[in-house]
Amino acid sequence: MMNKQVILTKRPVGTPSEDTWRVEEHEIPNAGPGEVVVKQLYISLDPAMRGWINDAKSYIPPVPIDGVMRAGSVGRVIASNHDKFQVGDYLLGTGGVQQYAVTNGKGWVQVNPQLVPLPTYLGTLGMPGYTAYFGLLDIGQPKEGETVLVSGAAGAVGSVVGQIAKIKGCRAVGIAGGPEKCKYIVDELGFDEAIDYKNENVRARLKETCPNGIDVYFDNVGGDILDLALTRINMNARIPICGAISQYNNTTPIKGPTNYLSLLVNRARMEGFIVFDFAKDYGKAALEMGQWLAQGKLKTKEHIVEGIENFYPTFLRLFSGDKRGKLILKVNEDN
Amino acid sequence: MMNKQVILTKRPVGTPSEDTWRVEEHEIPNAGPGEVVVKQLYISLDPAMRGWINDAKSYIPPVPIDGVMRAGSVGRVIASNHDKFQVGDYLLGTGGVQQYAVTNGKGWVQVNPQLVPLPTYLGTLGMPGYTAYFGLLDIGQPKEGETVLVSGAAGAVGSVVGQIAKIKGCRAVGIAGGPEKCKYIVDELGFDEAIDYKNENVRARLKETCPNGIDVYFDNVGGDILDLALTRINMNARIPICGAISQYNNTTPIKGPTNYLSLLVNRARMEGFIVFDFAKDYGKAALEMGQWLAQGKLKTKEHIVEGIENFYPTFLRLFSGDKRGKLILKVNEDN
Repeated sequence: MMNKQVILTKRPVGTPSEDTWRVEEHEIPNAGPGEVVVKQLYISLDPAMRGWINDAKSYIPPVPIDGVMRAGSVGRVIASNHDKFQVGDYLLGTGGVQQYAVTNGKGWVQVNPQLVPLPTYLGTLGMPGYTAYFGLLDIGQPKEGETVLVSGAAGAVGSVVGQIAKIKGCRAVGIAGGPEKCKYIVDELGFDEAIDYKNENVRARLKETCPNGIDVYFDNVGGDILDLALTRINMNARIPICGAISQYNNTTPIKGPTNYLSLLVNRARMEGFIVFDFAKDYGKAALEMGQWLAQGKLKTKEHIVEGIENFYPTFLRLFSGDKRGKLILKVNEDN
Repeated sequence: MMNKQVILTKRPVGTPSEDTWRVEEHEIPNAGPGEVVVKQLYISLDPAMRGWINDAKSYIPPVPIDGVMRAGSVGRVIASNHDKFQVGDYLLGTGGVQQYAVTNGKGWVQVNPQLVPLPTYLGTLGMPGYTAYFGLLDIGQPKEGETVLVSGAAGAVGSVVGQIAKIKGCRAVGIAGGPEKCKYIVDELGFDEAIDYKNENVRARLKETCPNGIDVYFDNVGGDILDLALTRINMNARIPICGAISQYNNTTPIKGPTNYLSLLVNRARMEGFIVFDFAKDYGKAALEMGQWLAQGKLKTKEHIVEGIENFYPTFLRLFSGDKRGKLILKVNEDN
């Protein structure tokens, strides 16, 4: 049986070109002692991937050249020498961008497709959902009645941030690109307001939509929007730094927040975090978010593209914003 | 009796020119009901003054055009209709850059020149000392054995930050301008290491002097040094933002910290603070720092310039760094 794999070919400068990766096909090795073979079904595409292919000190080692591209994934066990995972089990892990993953099971967990559809385990009930949950609640610490602003608000993380803000009794304002996404987060997800950064004056709209200032700004994008948000923060505001997607493909130095002295004037805080640090509490988050999903308080949407060969053009959608919901690549039928 | 006053003439762009202020001379008004007349002796010169003359929303209103320049001061009561302050009392307050202040006493406290010399109440036992104390201990939260880096290390705030870091069992590394200041903070104040940013390669020296990384970076300067410090921070590092003296006279936009995503990678925090927020705990700080002074654990130095007419050239020394210790203007003899 053959396994198509997306292999990292080189370290890109700026926006990755198509030859950053190549597709190879190899026989699937058998499961060794203690190993399982996972037929991968869905692969998660995340902005963080851009960082993983840089040769820079970061929170995890870079993907090696000629290695399989790193990615979260869900799939079904088709062969097992593992004492915990049986053939037929559905697993969530970091299987990489390939059709089959052979693993000793470390870091993989079993998931139940009866509870929520499998792709949701890559979105709201997975890394992006946990990122939203811990970044907002532990780092942002929103209090009832406060205003929470989030950028990338129609994305896998941002959409959950805004919905949890509403659940916690906050005013939720989202920044997204284009009228369709803005309509989606207000009409379907229940945000109070949306700012279309592609078509509106963000400075003016921040003033309109956050009349009482900003208490928590959950930043997914960096760049000019971070700078504008800094001009509207309240005393003791919290700014969880989740990412800076506007800067990931820069060939010039990153744009630092020119208005960072607003932190001083407002006794405010900018704080980075990595979801992996909260691993011991994933269960708590899954439970609470699972309940919100069941109660209809939390809505989720996946944008699924078919075919491992489409990895590259699908990856580019992360940065163009041409997607509707959590971006996922389907690489096998579940049969 | 005549009162020389330094009056704000205009809002400067960039480095203030001499005509930013003018000196006027007026009769001292009598003390009204509940008021005192303070013969001012020492006026505090602080980098924050540059911010106070900008017409921008900040933590306190700007000094009005044609108003007396704001400044902290100590002086002696020479006339009183106040029920608490008597003629002969020494008071600390915000008397402005003038020889006599008439005030209802709000915000003024009595000080004892027998305990420490009067100028020390404008330095280590005043606003700069409190800024160091609360910024380091409350915002920076250093733990024994950690590395504390401070910029502006020979200054009124930075010199106290490094000494308190040592008292708390930390490694203290200071950044200062020129060999004389560097020698001073190591040989006289007990810092472990000094980096001369005017003559040394700060990047290389940070590596040498902070071999275990930086746990707390107390930032007084902003700009390139903040960016370099960000490249060496440890996991869960804290960066109290106290000021950004390198940027105060900019005519171009402030340089934001290009390397701020190091906060994300290292789960670190950058947090602004204003010493006034800790006013209710000043007494506690004064007591503890007074003991350290008495025990010789905390050393203090003032650079005193005579004559209110010298306000402008003395103010410029804040930014050229041409000073040795806390910068103070003496505007009257205590007679």
